[in-house]
Amino acid sequence: VILINGKPNDRVDALDRGLAYGDGVFRTMRATRGQIPYWLRHHRKLASDCAALAIVCPAEDLLRAELAEILSTESECILKVIITRGAGGRGYAPPVKPSGTRIIASFPLPKISTQIDHDGVRAIWCQTRLAIQPRLAGIKHLNRLENVLARSEWSDPQIAEGLMLDTAGRVIEGTASNLFILEGERLVTPDLRGCGVAGVQRERIIEVAGRAGMVCSVEEVTRERICDAKQILLVNSVVGLRWVSALGDLRWQQSWQTAAIRQALDDLAD
Amino acid sequence: VILINGKPNDRVDALDRGLAYGDGVFRTMRATRGQIPYWLRHHRKLASDCAALAIVCPAEDLLRAELAEILSTESECILKVIITRGAGGRGYAPPVKPSGTRIIASFPLPKISTQIDHDGVRAIWCQTRLAIQPRLAGIKHLNRLENVLARSEWSDPQIAEGLMLDTAGRVIEGTASNLFILEGERLVTPDLRGCGVAGVQRERIIEVAGRAGMVCSVEEVTRERICDAKQILLVNSVVGLRWVSALGDLRWQQSWQTAAIRQALDDLAD
Repeated sequence: VILINGKPNDRVDALDRGLAYGDGVFRTMRATRGQIPYWLRHHRKLASDCAALAIVCPAEDLLRAELAEILSTESECILKVIITRGAGGRGYAPPVKPSGTRIIASFPLPKISTQIDHDGVRAIWCQTRLAIQPRLAGIKHLNRLENVLARSEWSDPQIAEGLMLDTAGRVIEGTASNLFILEGERLVTPDLRGCGVAGVQRERIIEVAGRAGMVCSVEEVTRERICDAKQILLVNSVVGLRWVSALGDLRWQQSWQTAAIRQALDDLAD
Repeated sequence: VILINGKPNDRVDALDRGLAYGDGVFRTMRATRGQIPYWLRHHRKLASDCAALAIVCPAEDLLRAELAEILSTESECILKVIITRGAGGRGYAPPVKPSGTRIIASFPLPKISTQIDHDGVRAIWCQTRLAIQPRLAGIKHLNRLENVLARSEWSDPQIAEGLMLDTAGRVIEGTASNLFILEGERLVTPDLRGCGVAGVQRERIIEVAGRAGMVCSVEEVTRERICDAKQILLVNSVVGLRWVSALGDLRWQQSWQTAAIRQALDDLAD
């Protein structure tokens, strides 16, 4: 099902600026039992991403009502919300009175083996680098060619994720997930002031680390720190928390802290 | 008029990857007397940009026929061609057998005073910087948020263009044009190996400089070189060649070389 500005429709204006320039933002969420966990957090992120680009964000209750319409027939699915600056003429200048476009689409749940909690996932290093652009860093905007190119680097379904460096060689994130490393009993996640997407689950782990008996800090992460880490964690809103069992020649076992973080995340209501 | 995959249509698939990720490329061209000057050059650029992203580029004769269909009813217009990787499911991984989307749209000619050849144009410095991303540099792809943000920095119609620096402080281009500076009798255009769009008219000026009695070289351009230049030129396929009469506190008069380059460009058949 796809709703465009609230109406069932599977086509958008060919002159939408989301298509012309990637002039918009998005979120991908997992719905379960007809609900979207952490919805208010998702909307807060959507609103702050829109604000960063001076795009008008639809009101929380409007989006919630439209999502509920889809959830009434599909209670278990992936939901994607795209907000663009709307249709415009030719040229980069935003329209004086832009009328944004909101697209809500549902997708079937991906097949995720429950075994991965136990077995972990395999990851690789991507060659494609993230450019350093503080003006857009953290925002989940529609300019995602770097992620597309990075994700194109492998097709082996056994590989769950590719890790990306920025052009200065710092570790930033997975192509579609945020990254944490465990050092002793300390969690560290890469600083995203230069590039990367600051996701909602990353925010939740930062908040919840204390309850799992850990401190969590945001720092510059080098490849060396990845190699030396006790555990590498990947997180996003579609598949949740995963631990990396293999990356190149490196191998890890599940640490007890990973289970503790998973539990703390589950216990956090929002 | 808009043709999507050859058929009149003003709406595209809401799941097109051009919209989801900016996963595509485009060109904007000026048609005159039912013809597109330098069309083969435009198609060559389209093909090389597609190749850089592993997108299948439509054949030259197919696009030419579709453009001719529009030109048969609109002989003077701006034509925009967008090629995307096509519709896809959710997720960054390109479809195994992508079926690209081609969108051809016509727009009315912008009002350009013939006076600007004589008077020059006003430009400003933009605050928005271009990130350094060699993997995407030069390509006219659909990830254009930097240009959108830069173009949002002014609304005064007296200002024709904004000049953009990269994050290292080098001068790269205008928001929608390539840039040349005249130093003595030497033309210089910024090196675009880190960022920027390598446009068709830039390529033509580099080729034609010799005929106008100048050497042209591709170099790193600093702000200081802009300030000291004898002339600043802007070029694109919509409005052609323009000289900058004012940039901040700086003022220029038209140099005779500008007229010579204009003449040489007009004389170059393709």
